[in-house]
Amino acid sequence: MTRRRLIVVSNRGPVSYGRGPDGERTTLRGGGGLVTALRPLLARHDVTWIASAMSDEDRAVAAESGGALEDTTRDGSPFRVRLVAHDPAAYDGYYNVVANPMLWFVQHRLWGFARRPVVDERFHAAWRDGYEAVNRTFAEAVVEELDRAPGAPVFFHDYHLYRAPRLVRDARPDALLAHFVHIPWSDADTWTAVPAAVREAVHDGLLANDVVGFHTRRWARTFRRAARDVLGAEGERTGVLDYRGRTVRVTHHPIAIDPDEFAELAASERVRAAEARLVAGRPEQLVLRVDRTDPSKNAVRGFTAFGLLLERHPEHRGRVGMLALLDPSRQDVPEYAEYLAAIEVEAAAVNERFGTDAWLPVDLRVADDFPQSVAAYKQFDVLLVNAVFDGMNLVAKEAPLVNERDGVLVLSENAGAHEELGDWAVTVNPFDVDGQAEALHEALTLPAEERRRRAEAIRAHVRDHDAARWIDAQLADLDAVGKGGNT
Amino acid sequence: MTRRRLIVVSNRGPVSYGRGPDGERTTLRGGGGLVTALRPLLARHDVTWIASAMSDEDRAVAAESGGALEDTTRDGSPFRVRLVAHDPAAYDGYYNVVANPMLWFVQHRLWGFARRPVVDERFHAAWRDGYEAVNRTFAEAVVEELDRAPGAPVFFHDYHLYRAPRLVRDARPDALLAHFVHIPWSDADTWTAVPAAVREAVHDGLLANDVVGFHTRRWARTFRRAARDVLGAEGERTGVLDYRGRTVRVTHHPIAIDPDEFAELAASERVRAAEARLVAGRPEQLVLRVDRTDPSKNAVRGFTAFGLLLERHPEHRGRVGMLALLDPSRQDVPEYAEYLAAIEVEAAAVNERFGTDAWLPVDLRVADDFPQSVAAYKQFDVLLVNAVFDGMNLVAKEAPLVNERDGVLVLSENAGAHEELGDWAVTVNPFDVDGQAEALHEALTLPAEERRRRAEAIRAHVRDHDAARWIDAQLADLDAVGKGGNT
Repeated sequence: MTRRRLIVVSNRGPVSYGRGPDGERTTLRGGGGLVTALRPLLARHDVTWIASAMSDEDRAVAAESGGALEDTTRDGSPFRVRLVAHDPAAYDGYYNVVANPMLWFVQHRLWGFARRPVVDERFHAAWRDGYEAVNRTFAEAVVEELDRAPGAPVFFHDYHLYRAPRLVRDARPDALLAHFVHIPWSDADTWTAVPAAVREAVHDGLLANDVVGFHTRRWARTFRRAARDVLGAEGERTGVLDYRGRTVRVTHHPIAIDPDEFAELAASERVRAAEARLVAGRPEQLVLRVDRTDPSKNAVRGFTAFGLLLERHPEHRGRVGMLALLDPSRQDVPEYAEYLAAIEVEAAAVNERFGTDAWLPVDLRVADDFPQSVAAYKQFDVLLVNAVFDGMNLVAKEAPLVNERDGVLVLSENAGAHEELGDWAVTVNPFDVDGQAEALHEALTLPAEERRRRAEAIRAHVRDHDAARWIDAQLADLDAVGKGGNT
Repeated sequence: MTRRRLIVVSNRGPVSYGRGPDGERTTLRGGGGLVTALRPLLARHDVTWIASAMSDEDRAVAAESGGALEDTTRDGSPFRVRLVAHDPAAYDGYYNVVANPMLWFVQHRLWGFARRPVVDERFHAAWRDGYEAVNRTFAEAVVEELDRAPGAPVFFHDYHLYRAPRLVRDARPDALLAHFVHIPWSDADTWTAVPAAVREAVHDGLLANDVVGFHTRRWARTFRRAARDVLGAEGERTGVLDYRGRTVRVTHHPIAIDPDEFAELAASERVRAAEARLVAGRPEQLVLRVDRTDPSKNAVRGFTAFGLLLERHPEHRGRVGMLALLDPSRQDVPEYAEYLAAIEVEAAAVNERFGTDAWLPVDLRVADDFPQSVAAYKQFDVLLVNAVFDGMNLVAKEAPLVNERDGVLVLSENAGAHEELGDWAVTVNPFDVDGQAEALHEALTLPAEERRRRAEAIRAHVRDHDAARWIDAQLADLDAVGKGGNT
């Protein structure tokens, strides 16, 4: 395959820099799902990755030599990183007021419109002086990089960057632009949570791309309808939209994981050490959940459902335990801090009601400990993914891949992963705690052969639909635009 | 016009019965928007109206002679009323668990999905033994009435009766059935608030009709999309859906009021007495809101916006007052009781901050006092209708019609009335308190000529698009089905 020059743009980049004890520059390589999924891209093409400067040292890098450095991924692929420094107040409005909670809450439908959101002058200012301003800074960096590599396709990622494509398009009308949205889309009525000017700007920004991608057919369809309702874009039922004299392809390609990386991780020393500790204390059957403490992940209803399971099916008492490995998330946003408190209350209520000296029903661990999570992936009998809404949910792919007990996946109908894996999962409605309790019981009592059949099917699907395939599909979308890029 | 035999079905009927001091049967004639809007139907056709028995005497009527009585409307049109008695526990589940808050909250998007709803065994039982059971009782009454008047069209109304049409259709496949939904529709993703079996039953029940009507193009479009997404009905973009071998027309006709009735009301003694009291205490400029204390009506954000107006535009202090006439609503449902408490807190906060001995910024009156409301309709300078979501909002039509000060309508983009009246209103986003404060300022300072122009346009529209026209449009829909009815 020909190497191409490509520009990737995301808020959080693949590396962040610091200073070691002797003043030397140190590199922290991020391991998020996006970085993992894009690794095949970095391995095969010449990528410049534009991202926000996060640390002091990042800002120092951003101030040097045009803010760009040559670096390598963990497995040695070279890439160029360009860090963009933002005014701290602008970044705060962009990140902590507009992107989280507003856009995240709108797109995961977490607002109870009776009381929230309240759109006030703080939001208006954060939109104008934060989100728009940070997107402008990103767009300026993209335009400079395009001038270094004319014709290089640009891949924008996620909900932090809805405005940047329009600003790039205005400056470079012939640029080849693609945007991948990693979270669900909402219908136009839900988008009335923000004033007309804001929701129009969001949709207009995305429609400045040549390709807009989502994880599922469902989110792509919702976006096409919303683009029609909010902006009058034409072509709702087909895969393209016509808007402002241009054609935009709306596609869906589910993000994937790197099976080899997970196999390696699962066999690593750190994971095996964590696994030994887990095995020593594990219940007869282990129900696992691994999430951030984000309200969209729905941990509270999950504990309620687990309590109902123990109430209705006493045979599980003393034998089944729920292990909840929750990474604390965005605790400087009040909605998230409140939700973590509710998680702790609900877990304690189940333990108070059913726990004994010999048995802890809910083992809640709030920490960021990835090796422990992978160890638990190997050990679960039932994995509960009951998200309120979720663009994809990578846990539903990662955990079954490395699981060694033919564990059963209980999966929310509102997780993007359900479009791929629903046939082999026990499906739950995220709001129906009664149904979730029955689904856990069904999963715990599924015959061994059926467990194996389903687990194997999921593993085969996840192995086959890997990150390289996800990347190739997106490059094919770009080629289909007909401009080709600089091959 | 030929008189037709027609059957109307709604949860609340046009009359309710009691016992007078001497044991004689007394009649309470309801004055709700639906009864008013249907009056032209009752005046011109032979209507049998099927409704729930509400009072003890209603239940006595239901137990006599097939539960049917001849009665007359306030203006003397005869009609036949048939009251249907329900098991109290079934009615409680149907009304207080399923219809309110669940369906109401889903369709007005009032749930914050992070924490609510929690669908538990109580909901499942209320659906099965309440909503389905009450709808079955209604359907049995409809079938009996159809056997008395074969071919008579049946008009179902609103969110209490989504299942009855399917049950009637199963029993009488050739019946001519129409359903009018008076509240907004929600997209399929929002409908995941209830389990798949429930949302499928809701859509399936409505699609058993020949015609499904909404107030606006917007709600009708959302219903067509949801019917496709939830049930696979075909034909999303046109006005018809194909489902289970039948064709269903999805139409939109905005509900209207009776201009003559309001003119008469406005001139009545009771209203004039209330008006005299209002005028004696009125501020220089009067901002009015008239609503139920329902969270969908958005009173709390309205008070927040009024406080922001006073903060930013001090020239209004001491001169402008907000009169909030709020009818307490569904206080046995916790969500409604909590919302009323929040209303009182927010109004008090504005008064505490800005009030003086001589001037009360927010005059909050929580009571059911229709003459006082009509008096206030005549007296407002600005009418605030900032609903979160609203099927229509009749206050936006009633109040401008009888207003005598060329008052300005400030209207939520999410109220159904906005589709008709938006051009002459100051539009607000219901979540944007900052924008609402500025809209109030704009309305309070609009030049007299512009106020008059807009007020006249609204009055002309409301007079022209009256209840008779609304009825005729629905009868025309039925005729278009091609079965004609028993003319």
